[in-house]
Amino acid sequence: MMAMQWAKKIAQIQPFYVMEMLAKAKALEAQGRHIVRMEAGEPDFTTPAPVLAAARLALDEDRTRYTPSLGIPELRAAIAQWYQTRYGVAVSPQRVVVTPGTSGAFQLIFGLLLDAGDRVALSDPGYPCYPNMVRFVNGEPVAIPVSPQSHYQLSAELLVEQLAPQHARGLKAAIVTSPSNPTGTLIPDAQMQTLLSAVEGQGGYVISDELYHGITYGCKARTALEFSENAIVINGFSKYFGMTGWRLGWMIVPPSAVRGIEMLSQNLFISAPTIAQYAALQAFDCAGAMDEQVARYDLNRRYLLTALPKLGFGIGVEPKGAFYIYADATQVLSKTGLANGEALCMAALEQAGCAFTPGLDFGRYRSHEHVRFCYAAELAQLKIAMERLAAWLG
Amino acid sequence: MMAMQWAKKIAQIQPFYVMEMLAKAKALEAQGRHIVRMEAGEPDFTTPAPVLAAARLALDEDRTRYTPSLGIPELRAAIAQWYQTRYGVAVSPQRVVVTPGTSGAFQLIFGLLLDAGDRVALSDPGYPCYPNMVRFVNGEPVAIPVSPQSHYQLSAELLVEQLAPQHARGLKAAIVTSPSNPTGTLIPDAQMQTLLSAVEGQGGYVISDELYHGITYGCKARTALEFSENAIVINGFSKYFGMTGWRLGWMIVPPSAVRGIEMLSQNLFISAPTIAQYAALQAFDCAGAMDEQVARYDLNRRYLLTALPKLGFGIGVEPKGAFYIYADATQVLSKTGLANGEALCMAALEQAGCAFTPGLDFGRYRSHEHVRFCYAAELAQLKIAMERLAAWLG
Ligand SMILES: Cc1ncc(COP(=O)(O)O)c(C=O)c1O
Ligand SMILES: Cc1ncc(COP(=O)(O)O)c(C=O)c1O
Repeated sequence: MMAMQWAKKIAQIQPFYVMEMLAKAKALEAQGRHIVRMEAGEPDFTTPAPVLAAARLALDEDRTRYTPSLGIPELRAAIAQWYQTRYGVAVSPQRVVVTPGTSGAFQLIFGLLLDAGDRVALSDPGYPCYPNMVRFVNGEPVAIPVSPQSHYQLSAELLVEQLAPQHARGLKAAIVTSPSNPTGTLIPDAQMQTLLSAVEGQGGYVISDELYHGITYGCKARTALEFSENAIVINGFSKYFGMTGWRLGWMIVPPSAVRGIEMLSQNLFISAPTIAQYAALQAFDCAGAMDEQVARYDLNRRYLLTALPKLGFGIGVEPKGAFYIYADATQVLSKTGLANGEALCMAALEQAGCAFTPGLDFGRYRSHEHVRFCYAAELAQLKIAMERLAAWLG
Repeated sequence: MMAMQWAKKIAQIQPFYVMEMLAKAKALEAQGRHIVRMEAGEPDFTTPAPVLAAARLALDEDRTRYTPSLGIPELRAAIAQWYQTRYGVAVSPQRVVVTPGTSGAFQLIFGLLLDAGDRVALSDPGYPCYPNMVRFVNGEPVAIPVSPQSHYQLSAELLVEQLAPQHARGLKAAIVTSPSNPTGTLIPDAQMQTLLSAVEGQGGYVISDELYHGITYGCKARTALEFSENAIVINGFSKYFGMTGWRLGWMIVPPSAVRGIEMLSQNLFISAPTIAQYAALQAFDCAGAMDEQVARYDLNRRYLLTALPKLGFGIGVEPKGAFYIYADATQVLSKTGLANGEALCMAALEQAGCAFTPGLDFGRYRSHEHVRFCYAAELAQLKIAMERLAAWLG
């Protein structure tokens, strides 16, 4: 075998610890142990029945060829309509791009925007794939430490340093994830507004990842398009509609960006999965059923918001969206004498049968002291987990 | 609206002329005209029934979550087994990576191999997405003009210039597509062997795109793995198995590459479409039915190999695979007085109701004088096309 040399960026990519937790949890389950699974970030409900029915119909009609790279026109129109219904924002179907997951949308927009060395601001903690996708096209991720003070979200103030005129290269883009993974927090309206002005004012773009829209508790997430027509909005069917494995997302881009995105999509993907596109036509009519799931998650959330602090986990700002709680484990670490979140997660899994994810997956800023709990699970299971942790922590 | 600035590489990407032909053909059809469609590169048969049945079962069982990034273990094992059955090559399932189309496989391997400025040799004419995907990660595509003399394939001799020791940067990879799109030609065994030695000898990798394997006429395509265990083999379900819209491919990589590819795949895609993965488990048992389709295409091919030269189209080397004929249109151009292949394709579509693709889609080397015919169609339709062209060309 030849000794192979990989691209330098490979060394900068870290494995996801959640995958190790997941593998370890499964291995323990295979040994007969019962594990409460709070590590992965997937809804626990199944694809809505009308979507499954539409997929069956697509199979019957053998709708299995490549589609146009921007997506089938019916789906682009349905997505545009969703913005009218859900947000009262008029979006032309021409601006809607159907993508293989929101993951695909990020590849397209980074490809469109970034020359080598161009910088993208993102929150630390944040979704770990962003910086790796930026590096993939030789861009430079700029991690901005965020804390409960800014709802774990970027803000114009936090970017001041990065946007200062003496920083000749400026920022090409800033990513906002609201509700956020891993923190579950939303960006306040005023904060979004001033962030947009700051970033766009220096010629950059705000990319708004709205994948957890719909999964909010006692509030409604607003789309970045309500604040700026230049915002780039990314969303998809994975979370609210419970369609992770279908690999389908979308993006709303300014009209002038459509042609470039189309060419990139032709080259990178050819098209998004065809059956998924036809199935997704039925998704928007399922919002009622989805909201029932969200109501169920809210019970989980409320339960954990009370139970976790009793165990010593700090929750700096109430998470009002997604299905995550990002907890400060400092107190638990000093109590147990464990070195960091990674050690805590491993010990809790092995000794208490509870799987959750170390903060290290989501950044570098105080990440060793944090852990993420996913509550897309049965409440009864979460109760078992809290009891086990209580007994374990003594 | 802000004036947006796109990444420099966007200016280097060209639209696919085939898409314009396709749109124009559909527009004419919508006006009631009958068009013989030989422009797109898609099989005209439907997904095999057992695959559709497996997809229905996957829906019934709601197999719709994310899968492991490398693919479901059953499918990786089935693909490995296919190499044993089809080629007599032992491949460990650990080396098999399931991808969202072969398109996804190319993104992964370019991501793994290429730092900015790293060079990848590819044939001109060739599949147009390669150079654009190389540019996407800031690599440098090196187009090597190929002609009938080398079966329109790369060869060690043709690379000499690129591989010469004084070329300090050398080549990171060379792509072989056999059978080729757009030329339908296979690389002779000896040519593959010396090419592999030349590229690997200077520390590079041969990436073998085997997507048209199975679609060969009177011969069998050999996998690059029969020649070198370091070859990177890419294949998928789109062509031979008629599953374009399912977006599923695979890649066989050296063991040392698996971990890097896995991390890239987690970040770029999360996973390939789940239903497609379960459905594809049935594909390999359908080879018999697929070979019947190939036999049908062979009749089409033979017909065109006789008919096209009579019209003045030159066929420099007999295409023995895929479903394309890459024809030299020099004679037809001088007869019609049309400026180039693009003008010829447009005129043939408008005036003779025949859609095929200008060579310009596939490179720069003598591409204005060439056109590509796709014969994944009904023979009766191809006959109509040839009659129309005969009448039109007089
Ligand atoms: C914030 C965020 N964005 C994007 C994604 C990617 O999801 P998908 O590609 O399934 O749309 C995820 C998945 O966990 C996520 O948490
Ligand atoms: C030579 C070649 N490679 C790769 C592809 C990509 O196909 P897919 O992503 O559907 O596997 C194509 C599609 O036409 C092709 O012709």
